[in-house]
Amino acid sequence: MPSPASPAAQPAADGHRPSAAAAPARVLILGGGFAGVAVAQELEKRVRRLSRLIDVTLVSKTNYLLFLPMLPEAASGSIELTHIMSPLRPLIPRTRVRIESVQSIDLTQQTVTTLQPSTRREQVLPWDYLVIALGNIVDLAGLAGVAQHGLPIKTIGDALHIRNRAIEMLDGAEAATDPDERRRLLTFVVAGGGFSGVELAAELNAFLRDAARAYHTILAQDIRLVLLHSGERLLPELSAGLARFAQRQLQRQGIELKLRTRLAAATAQEVILQDGERLGANTLVVAVGAGTNPVLRSLEAAKDRGRLKVDRTLLLVGQTRVWALGDCAAVPDPKAKQDDQYVPPTAQFALREGRTVARNIVATLEGRPPQPFTFAGLGQLVSLGQHTAVAELLGRIKVSGLLAWLLWRGFYLSRLPGLERKLRVWIDWTLDLFSRRDLAQLNVQRTERVTLAHYEPGQVIIRQGDPADAFFVIMRGEVQVVREQPDGTELEVDRMHQGDSFGEVGLLQHRRRNATIRAVDAVDVIALGSTDFGLLAESWQGLANLLAHTASERTPQRPLVS
Amino acid sequence: MPSPASPAAQPAADGHRPSAAAAPARVLILGGGFAGVAVAQELEKRVRRLSRLIDVTLVSKTNYLLFLPMLPEAASGSIELTHIMSPLRPLIPRTRVRIESVQSIDLTQQTVTTLQPSTRREQVLPWDYLVIALGNIVDLAGLAGVAQHGLPIKTIGDALHIRNRAIEMLDGAEAATDPDERRRLLTFVVAGGGFSGVELAAELNAFLRDAARAYHTILAQDIRLVLLHSGERLLPELSAGLARFAQRQLQRQGIELKLRTRLAAATAQEVILQDGERLGANTLVVAVGAGTNPVLRSLEAAKDRGRLKVDRTLLLVGQTRVWALGDCAAVPDPKAKQDDQYVPPTAQFALREGRTVARNIVATLEGRPPQPFTFAGLGQLVSLGQHTAVAELLGRIKVSGLLAWLLWRGFYLSRLPGLERKLRVWIDWTLDLFSRRDLAQLNVQRTERVTLAHYEPGQVIIRQGDPADAFFVIMRGEVQVVREQPDGTELEVDRMHQGDSFGEVGLLQHRRRNATIRAVDAVDVIALGSTDFGLLAESWQGLANLLAHTASERTPQRPLVS
Repeated sequence: MPSPASPAAQPAADGHRPSAAAAPARVLILGGGFAGVAVAQELEKRVRRLSRLIDVTLVSKTNYLLFLPMLPEAASGSIELTHIMSPLRPLIPRTRVRIESVQSIDLTQQTVTTLQPSTRREQVLPWDYLVIALGNIVDLAGLAGVAQHGLPIKTIGDALHIRNRAIEMLDGAEAATDPDERRRLLTFVVAGGGFSGVELAAELNAFLRDAARAYHTILAQDIRLVLLHSGERLLPELSAGLARFAQRQLQRQGIELKLRTRLAAATAQEVILQDGERLGANTLVVAVGAGTNPVLRSLEAAKDRGRLKVDRTLLLVGQTRVWALGDCAAVPDPKAKQDDQYVPPTAQFALREGRTVARNIVATLEGRPPQPFTFAGLGQLVSLGQHTAVAELLGRIKVSGLLAWLLWRGFYLSRLPGLERKLRVWIDWTLDLFSRRDLAQLNVQRTERVTLAHYEPGQVIIRQGDPADAFFVIMRGEVQVVREQPDGTELEVDRMHQGDSFGEVGLLQHRRRNATIRAVDAVDVIALGSTDFGLLAESWQGLANLLAHTASERTPQRPLVS
Repeated sequence: MPSPASPAAQPAADGHRPSAAAAPARVLILGGGFAGVAVAQELEKRVRRLSRLIDVTLVSKTNYLLFLPMLPEAASGSIELTHIMSPLRPLIPRTRVRIESVQSIDLTQQTVTTLQPSTRREQVLPWDYLVIALGNIVDLAGLAGVAQHGLPIKTIGDALHIRNRAIEMLDGAEAATDPDERRRLLTFVVAGGGFSGVELAAELNAFLRDAARAYHTILAQDIRLVLLHSGERLLPELSAGLARFAQRQLQRQGIELKLRTRLAAATAQEVILQDGERLGANTLVVAVGAGTNPVLRSLEAAKDRGRLKVDRTLLLVGQTRVWALGDCAAVPDPKAKQDDQYVPPTAQFALREGRTVARNIVATLEGRPPQPFTFAGLGQLVSLGQHTAVAELLGRIKVSGLLAWLLWRGFYLSRLPGLERKLRVWIDWTLDLFSRRDLAQLNVQRTERVTLAHYEPGQVIIRQGDPADAFFVIMRGEVQVVREQPDGTELEVDRMHQGDSFGEVGLLQHRRRNATIRAVDAVDVIALGSTDFGLLAESWQGLANLLAHTASERTPQRPLVS
């Protein structure tokens, strides 16, 4: 119902919402990372005295702001995981926070559809001003097996998985009897020599070498950590001199660098490089492969390599009420003449972009023109672990070693939201100086689930005599079924292909595998764990019939593979 | 190779290992809880000067000792999760630690078979002396839907799930528009009024009421927490007066007590009591249902209600080299005349039992007779949250309120292993006094997996018009398929039963549900999430055929249910 509004509550007179001039303008922010939160914080600050002017909603998949630059330290256990997670609601108390995932954006209808995780209900949220800050995703398509076997470093769960994997490998190596297996368990490959790859490699290396001291049979020199990078030198964001310093530091810490090297594929036990080299390693961490959020992929808007194109005021190209910023946007570099040079996708830029967007929303509301983004960057800092770092400040000053490391700590500490969190991280760091690495494995996942696995030619998928623990469906490739003969030789008894399945008999009868299945070419499979498979096979009449039918087709020449 | 052994390294001359008299005796400890770790610690202390005498191996499923009495505080976020996990290797540095799960125990062959999680390999471990300290498991069989929808409180993952669930419910309620749904989201039921149920209820209640302050629309009085207990009064372990004090405290904090009440069943949205009452609640925490570890279920040994019977020296009845202790053993109460009264399954007893077992192993090795277990207990302490507790010490002294709470904190702090961990927990507690609850949701699970769900008669399983997100198989019961007619009425078009499946068409075609499926009687289903189901259906030729066949059987009268 329209009512006489105060002048301050009057939105810009652009005829857009004529029938509800007094209703507050609905600002919808998509994304709860640095960029989205910075917009909400700045809006809260700017419109404190004008609370009826706008109604701000922020949609985030997680209920916390993740302090992404500290993720490598959290992965290695130097900082508690929860200390780099800052709950959203206390950060932006006057903003409506919705913990939902964005399904689609409609620029014409001015709505966004979200899905609520607990009720699985869809919501349609209308907006007058839209801010897109959805970040990017990890996209490893095109690298066979890497999505299945590589560990990305992007979320808090990723950090936890890397840490748990490292401990699991040490525990496995301590008990291993086969020297090849032990070597694979103790080899860790990190792909990607940019900021996050370098920091993760340094932290993981320090963690492993320190943690090994708690084991009876593992020596520091048994641990191999390989850092892969496609370029001529690490850290292309930094000058050549500082990058060389970083390389020397990492090598001194025992990290093996492989430059001009690209990842090609991965299996559960191998990392395969584009030049054909194979590294026996059970652990691959991938700090490469930034991809476009699927919601943005289907959005009709100008893009540059998947990122939304915005003008210098951060307005989406062709729009007057839609802004985009952060990692999902191609933000023109204020220092560059042309619009085709972009600022780097880092937290310091996301924060400044957020303030610009908030100011421009208020300007638009008040009928003033939006202002361009002008921040030129403060510099770059990379932690190399073990009390050293490299930094390049204001484009000129170069610092390395302990001073840079102290700068790094101080800078990030100052960026952490809230005094309490600063204090907790400072305590973590302080206690860390005096204590050994915490080896506890915070393992909260069910071990069974539907998983995907990739095998290279010749690799064994199941081995005769092993206990049956999964059912397999072939997605791609060919496998051979071989039986070990009493005289120790092998006899091929069958081949199977895409769409075929195997492993059900052993599971249902709790038997050991009666044959070995080996990949003939590159093979991708779906694996269903024994509990899940057993449940389905016992309860689902159709599946039981299907399995019985498959069994009846098998002959002594085409045996049942258990 | 036998060699002249020093007298100290000579095992007891019982003719058991005559050919390897000089080899150290192999002590195998199963279980990494308080009991198992106490045995290893005491053995390390006692045989420091006799390292060639014994060779101790401990097998544990987790690589840390979980400080179980603090689990409710970790669930509510008062203490960091990792601070109640103490890595095993630094605790027992001279013991071989194997992170493996026990598959079976062979008392005749003197071996134990374990499974290594990372390599999925079986190991056969021989032993001369066996210590069984495998604890118990949560067994909710017999309570329909409780295993599927109840959250146990037993592991670190359980604590994390409860905390995440609580935050998810608050986030969901803040966005909810249906008042019934909002009420269900904000109702929390805890079943079990023993120590862990009471402590969990108090902690969860304090957490929820404090956390609600960060939400715009949730008031403390909107939150309902119900504690169910089958007995006449809570805390049967304590005297009536102290239990009454505890009850009053909990009620003052806003907790609703339901005594003489037993849990009967649960669905995703309801908790059903044995008297037929139904509580609309999305969250049920179960602190009931201690069950026998499956490995012990198949062990040929005397048992009392699933627990292994031991004599007063903690030797397994009928054995001379096999001990059992902790929660998996029925340990005769030293104060009781008869052997059929047992000590309570608490940490303080497990610790003392561990020392007795270690001393008795050394005695047996040295040819001395084993000594009986004599510890009578120090008392009981229960934290009630909000700076209050009740305690009963040495069977006589009763304390309640703030003093008991300080005692509780001091006692547990003193029990935490290691100075660093004490310091970290003390810092957690101190910061906790000055700060609000941390709302960050440490969510690391994949959201999709094969899950089980239980529905009571009349409940809707899928609703016409909702987006399709799972495929279902009926394990038990009958469902009706109804179509909403254009005039708003419902028309039953089909019934389905055990072994039938539904929901595939909507998933495969990314459509909305074209019918509602409702439980006719009590129904159990298996749900397979859309991604997992899509993978299987796309790749597995047999499944694709099966689904096509099912589709061809459906007629306008028996429609495809998407």
